[in-house]
Amino acid sequence: MKISGANFIGSSVSIKGSIAFKTFNPVLNQENEWDFFQATPEEVDEAVCKAQTAFFDFSKTTPKERAVFLNEIIQQLERTKTSILKVYQAESGLPLNRALAEYQRTIQQLSNFSEILIEGKWPTVIHEQADANRIPTKQSLLKTQIGIGPVVVFGASNFPLAYSTIGGDSVAALAAGCPVIVKSHPMHAGTGELVAKAVVEAAKTSAMPEGVFSNLNAIDFHVGEQLVLHEGVAAVGFTGSINGGKALLKLAAARKNPIPVFAEMGSVNPLLIFPKKDTDLSLWATKMTVSITNNSGQFCTKPGLIFCLKSPESETFFSTLKEQFRAVNADFMVSPIICSNYNLRIEDLKKHKEIQFHEGLSHAIPNTGKPVLARIDGDDFVKHPSLQQEVFGPFSLVVFFDTITTLINAYSLLEGQLTTSFFGSYEDEVIQDKLLFLAMQKAGRIIFDEVPTGVETRRAMHHSGKFPASSDIRFTAVGTDSIDRFSRPIVYQNKY
Amino acid sequence: MKISGANFIGSSVSIKGSIAFKTFNPVLNQENEWDFFQATPEEVDEAVCKAQTAFFDFSKTTPKERAVFLNEIIQQLERTKTSILKVYQAESGLPLNRALAEYQRTIQQLSNFSEILIEGKWPTVIHEQADANRIPTKQSLLKTQIGIGPVVVFGASNFPLAYSTIGGDSVAALAAGCPVIVKSHPMHAGTGELVAKAVVEAAKTSAMPEGVFSNLNAIDFHVGEQLVLHEGVAAVGFTGSINGGKALLKLAAARKNPIPVFAEMGSVNPLLIFPKKDTDLSLWATKMTVSITNNSGQFCTKPGLIFCLKSPESETFFSTLKEQFRAVNADFMVSPIICSNYNLRIEDLKKHKEIQFHEGLSHAIPNTGKPVLARIDGDDFVKHPSLQQEVFGPFSLVVFFDTITTLINAYSLLEGQLTTSFFGSYEDEVIQDKLLFLAMQKAGRIIFDEVPTGVETRRAMHHSGKFPASSDIRFTAVGTDSIDRFSRPIVYQNKY
Repeated sequence: MKISGANFIGSSVSIKGSIAFKTFNPVLNQENEWDFFQATPEEVDEAVCKAQTAFFDFSKTTPKERAVFLNEIIQQLERTKTSILKVYQAESGLPLNRALAEYQRTIQQLSNFSEILIEGKWPTVIHEQADANRIPTKQSLLKTQIGIGPVVVFGASNFPLAYSTIGGDSVAALAAGCPVIVKSHPMHAGTGELVAKAVVEAAKTSAMPEGVFSNLNAIDFHVGEQLVLHEGVAAVGFTGSINGGKALLKLAAARKNPIPVFAEMGSVNPLLIFPKKDTDLSLWATKMTVSITNNSGQFCTKPGLIFCLKSPESETFFSTLKEQFRAVNADFMVSPIICSNYNLRIEDLKKHKEIQFHEGLSHAIPNTGKPVLARIDGDDFVKHPSLQQEVFGPFSLVVFFDTITTLINAYSLLEGQLTTSFFGSYEDEVIQDKLLFLAMQKAGRIIFDEVPTGVETRRAMHHSGKFPASSDIRFTAVGTDSIDRFSRPIVYQNKY
Repeated sequence: MKISGANFIGSSVSIKGSIAFKTFNPVLNQENEWDFFQATPEEVDEAVCKAQTAFFDFSKTTPKERAVFLNEIIQQLERTKTSILKVYQAESGLPLNRALAEYQRTIQQLSNFSEILIEGKWPTVIHEQADANRIPTKQSLLKTQIGIGPVVVFGASNFPLAYSTIGGDSVAALAAGCPVIVKSHPMHAGTGELVAKAVVEAAKTSAMPEGVFSNLNAIDFHVGEQLVLHEGVAAVGFTGSINGGKALLKLAAARKNPIPVFAEMGSVNPLLIFPKKDTDLSLWATKMTVSITNNSGQFCTKPGLIFCLKSPESETFFSTLKEQFRAVNADFMVSPIICSNYNLRIEDLKKHKEIQFHEGLSHAIPNTGKPVLARIDGDDFVKHPSLQQEVFGPFSLVVFFDTITTLINAYSLLEGQLTTSFFGSYEDEVIQDKLLFLAMQKAGRIIFDEVPTGVETRRAMHHSGKFPASSDIRFTAVGTDSIDRFSRPIVYQNKY
């Protein structure tokens, strides 16, 4: 397969800069062969200007024409599927089944958005007729939705396909009629290039305006910064760390005309578990072990905290979980940096004498993250707010509380979350109700007797949470309602 | 009527502070008799804490129960209607017909929201059934909307009823299940107190939780600042100046957990007029004169700029407009400060030698704003960006352009707007299309052959614009869709 390392500025292939970088193969523990060239300030500006120009014609396309474009992207991806999956694996160390699943998810998202456009489910049109007899005379109003303008999408490290180049944010923006400029993630710039090529090709085939899609390489912060500050950019989608997201939010808020930044940042997705005598503890433990360790736990919805009350059932549950956990193999992480960050966080945690550790299997293979299950007493947990912070990788902390009051208190101190899961429920309904209310104030999704990983992509999903899980709990990052991120109502009065 | 000058902290009447102020009667040109007491930091904190506590029970009320509450507010307002209108006039100098219209608008808004709650139009529920046969198993998802949390509403100077105490923001928040804390506007604190009393009484009668509504007096910035920074506050609604709005946005963005601020700030609502030989210029002039001068032009949708091309028709139009304008009487403005700000702006404008002025009738009555129509050449207009800024009062600037290119260029340099109105259209369809696109990028509402004042309150309205017209063009300040400002989706997985 041919990877040029170039930027795509609309359909133009462009290498103007000299800052070069390579991606890394975690399995082979070596750099991949290709050189990528960071977009220069001039190239960034070109991409945004092209997007601004494209916006005029693109916003005139009908929803059905944009559906054709999305379907054509599917066709183009299918043609290069083998290459994409190969480079995906070479740049992420993720196994083939995950590559296939994520590829399928990307196709599914394209297809879901195409479907709502074809079926007329978006935009929502509200038409109020004129009424000449009313005093004062009532004029007609037609309210519909239009794209917000050129959108910048930051590729995510942990989803080289489904939340990167033509992932959730990009497809939602294109569906709404917004040109997209992708700031490609440097860890999988090759995957990004192949996908971008497919999108650019599809844009040509379906006669979309030049500049409707650009893909820019970047190894440092400058490209992203320039994009977020560019006056031609109308909104930003980001999936990544809390610090990264906060930096972008700050930049966007300081603009002369502030723009929305949809940042999906960090979450520990607590599980509140109330095992009873008749609970199938082994089933719970299996679900949780898989959810914590699958693909090295590199998911935004990985459960990183498990709260329970001290009881014989909780002890039995923990023993079962521990046992299952110990049998899990260390798996590759998507990059050496992410792996070493994980190891550093575990080392830091090991300084806490109050925490007990139970580890999975490791074989001293570079770039793999050993599964770690930790246990702490509730009283010790609340003393260290840093223990609430997400550990990105196959780690979870089980917290044992003496009383429901201390459990509720600890839960209420947690920051915003994408999800909260209840396994079983507390015996007192009033208290359970109170816990549920607290969960609703933190999370975008409340789950009952199931783990939070495995996020559906359909319209009923709401993948968001109170800050800092996401920057805006009103908007979802997953599912077709994410089109609301990149669109806005408009009213025509006295016309239709 | 009895006005105590106290704060309402839920149903508790509270005066703890010593910072007192009075409101002013512009017609009598004297202070009103009542003393109002600014809420102390302790009182502000109490109001937010009560709202937080109330949120739990309030969010459990059904939409229909909240509709009963809104209808009960209507009943309570009707009981004190005479007093409210009297104090309204004493504190604003606005005439009785305007007081009645705004009162009616307030009632209409309460009734509109009550209606969507009763008819089940909010929340929107999306239910996806489980599917055990799918691989992997599909769990059920139920998505609905809930209130975002306690909302702070800043009363607007120019709408003592419809955009203040129980105005658009407050009723949208209550409808969504959010407790409301009003920062009462100091210019009409008495009107605010009477309305707050009605709301608090209605809350009791309809068994709403204590603290669901509070009303705080404030003469300086401290109360508002404390409210926006309070960790118990989830969102802010504001109608006022660009500087005021920007200050609140900055405060909210600097919070540990940033919250949305819906600020409706400033707009000049340009009219782009293309008179033809057969145009009824006198009709246009009448509509525009009323729109610019009615109630001293103190509306966010008052047209402050009129763009036209140099032509005999434009000259005839201007003569007609000028003639009508000169016959308009100076009218009272809502406060001496707003009136003197208006006069200062006019004086500043008079320093521009390129501008010609045509004034309405004045009679040296204090606190009245003389209608002013100004005229400038397009080439001079674009040299002075300050001429784009809103002049709050009965003023409009007519700009004559040599060519359509210079007109388009000047229009494209304008900041975000609530509205843009086209009177007639440019002869070349491609150019007209380009102008329309530009308008769509600036404004939330595009109007054809009509003036922007007289904003409908129904669902099809979108009262918003690109920054700085409003802080977020995705959300409306008027109409029942403003409930989206104060609500958010939530998903229950594997439950229903």
